[in-house]
This record gives sequence, structure tokens and C-alpha cells, in this order.
Amino acid sequence: MKELLISKINEFIPLNNSDLQIIDSLFKVKEYGANTVVHQEGEICNKLWFIAKGLVRYTANINGEERTFIFRNEGNFIGDIDGFIKQTPATKSIITIEKSTMYAISKTDLQLFYQKVTYGERFGRLLIETVFAAAVNHIVSFYTESPEQRYIQLIRQNKDFIQRISQYHIASFLGIKPQSLCRIKRRLFPSDL
Amino acid sequence: MKELLISKINEFIPLNNSDLQIIDSLFKVKEYGANTVVHQEGEICNKLWFIAKGLVRYTANINGEERTFIFRNEGNFIGDIDGFIKQTPATKSIITIEKSTMYAISKTDLQLFYQKVTYGERFGRLLIETVFAAAVNHIVSFYTESPEQRYIQLIRQNKDFIQRISQYHIASFLGIKPQSLCRIKRRLFPSDL
Repeated sequence: MKELLISKINEFIPLNNSDLQIIDSLFKVKEYGANTVVHQEGEICNKLWFIAKGLVRYTANINGEERTFIFRNEGNFIGDIDGFIKQTPATKSIITIEKSTMYAISKTDLQLFYQKVTYGERFGRLLIETVFAAAVNHIVSFYTESPEQRYIQLIRQNKDFIQRISQYHIASFLGIKPQSLCRIKRRLFPSDL
Repeated sequence: MKELLISKINEFIPLNNSDLQIIDSLFKVKEYGANTVVHQEGEICNKLWFIAKGLVRYTANINGEERTFIFRNEGNFIGDIDGFIKQTPATKSIITIEKSTMYAISKTDLQLFYQKVTYGERFGRLLIETVFAAAVNHIVSFYTESPEQRYIQLIRQNKDFIQRISQYHIASFLGIKPQSLCRIKRRLFPSDL
């Protein structure tokens, strides 16, 4: 059942039978309906989740406005990772877009993972390196790029699932009104409309 | 000679005699004059540095203007870490403020460190967790907080060495002119002036 999780971890480190059993025991299945809060901004995040099926968005209250700033689909680890590390209140919420199946691991169990899985520490380092590099890109792009530049990047980076995201959430991601998104699409892809 | 480096690594992981010898062989001493480029924006960063003595600033070209956005002193690991991970051109330069002594480790030698030092992988994970959490704070603060808020944070987080940084570089960090920095200081600390 946890094939996608196992294969994702296996992209980073080799796994033996004992490792597989440990992973199976530490990650717990969680089911979420569509539009459901997985983690709430302001609360301390004590879990990480792996999306086995589904789609989520990260939102943050920026200058009094709820803005979507990341989308994540199957095969990704999610969480308020910097708050999880520091154990400070989350600066973002994670909300499902679709009905989603996740495998959750608590902070305590993650320490067991690092200790007990043969190359557990290496996995932790490599995963956080990946998340770190992506997060720096995301934040810098959020504050410095135009809606049009960000739309092009969004399509390029998320071509597998962009059609599962509503125009309303894409407009929120770009920080513009849905009608402005229409104008951008008309300019970029005149033949599609 | 590498006492500060050893004690910094030792804050994260226990070290035995063999580990100490490996660390000593992998980190190379580098001396830099004041106002010297350690790493240049646009080039791929293949090293990390530990500051044994001295002070540096990170700068980036933001909308055509050179902006300082981080200061780091003795006891810190520095580098274009997200570019180092992805092996993409650095989005920032690192420039010494004072004459500095550093211990540099290449990307290849860092892999040896992870493999050969007893808890090398754990050190890598914990270090990157620390850097990640600080980087997210830095970037978000850079784009969202007022110069006055950022000045208060700068003083609070860097009280050990703030007096070693020129008013010119502090003003660049805040994105304001030196005369506006004077006005902020007058408002915040009327009795000091």
C-alpha cells in the first residue's frame, strides 16, 4: 500500500527488508476530504505528511489577505518544515484541494526513522536539501517576479496537475483577480481561447 | 588551530579521535583580506566555508541595485547553499567586511565527511535544518518587513558584532539611504545621539 512512499524514499537511499518494516510502522495513513485543513497557520507543526494521492495548497495570511503560494501533489513530502524544525508557530496553512490520502509521521517517529533506518540520516539530509532549494526559489519568486513570469513557471513546474487546480486558486497564487488571469492567458496562449 | 570549527561541529554531533583527524584533513585554511569576494554571484559554488575569524556580508543584485541582505561572523558556515545543492549559478555574492580566516571544504570532500565521520550524515542534516530555518526567516523578512522592523531584528540577532559593520552596509541591508538610517536611530534611541 505504501509503494509510492517507499519508492520516493528509495530515490534517495537503498532500503533493506528491515528498513521497509520500520517505515511501514512509523508512517500512519490519514484520509482528508477536499478543502480540508491539514495544518493550520499559527499552530506548531509536529508532523510531516507524504501525499500518496491528492493535491494540496499552502496558504499564508500576507498583509491581511489569504494568499496561496505553493501547490503540491502525489509523491511530495509536505509540512510547515521551517516551523517543524524550530518548533515555532506555522507561518502557513496546508489545505487539501482534492480528497487526499497521506502518510503522516510525527516528529518523535521521524527521529526513530533517522536512527533505525540504515541510511535514515542520509535520507533526512537529502530530503531537507531538496526542500530547502525549492523553498528559496518559491519565496524569492513570490516576492520578485511578475504574475506573468510566475504563471509561466507554475505551468512549467506543475504540468502533471495544473489542470486539477481551479482558476480561482491560480489567481490567488499569482496575487491577481481571476479576470486578470484570463487576460494573461489570452496574451500567452492566444490560440487556446 | 581549528578549535572553533571542531567545537561548532561538536555542538551537533559527538566526535572521536579518528573524526577529528578526518575533519582536520578535509577543511583547508584560507585567508581573505577585507572587502574581498569569497564567492561571486553567477558562478557555481563548489565550496562551503567556516568563518574562524572575521565578518562577511551576502549581497545580491536586486532590480539592478547591489543589496546586502545577510551578515555572518565567526562560528558560522557560509556559502551559496541552495545553489551548492542544486549546482546552479549563485544568486548572491559573499564578500568579506574584515580580514578573515576561513576553513573551506569542497563539495567532494563534504561527501567524504558525510561518509567517514561517525555521525557525518547527522551533522549534515542538522546543519542544513539550521541554515534552512534561518534562510526562510531572512528572505521573508527581507521582502515583507519595514526598514525599522529589520533594523530592530538586526540589532537583536547580531548584537555580538553589529558595531563592526559600517552604517553604509547597514543602510544597504535595510534598503535605505544612510541619512534615513540616522533618522531611524534617532527615533528608536533618542538618548544615544
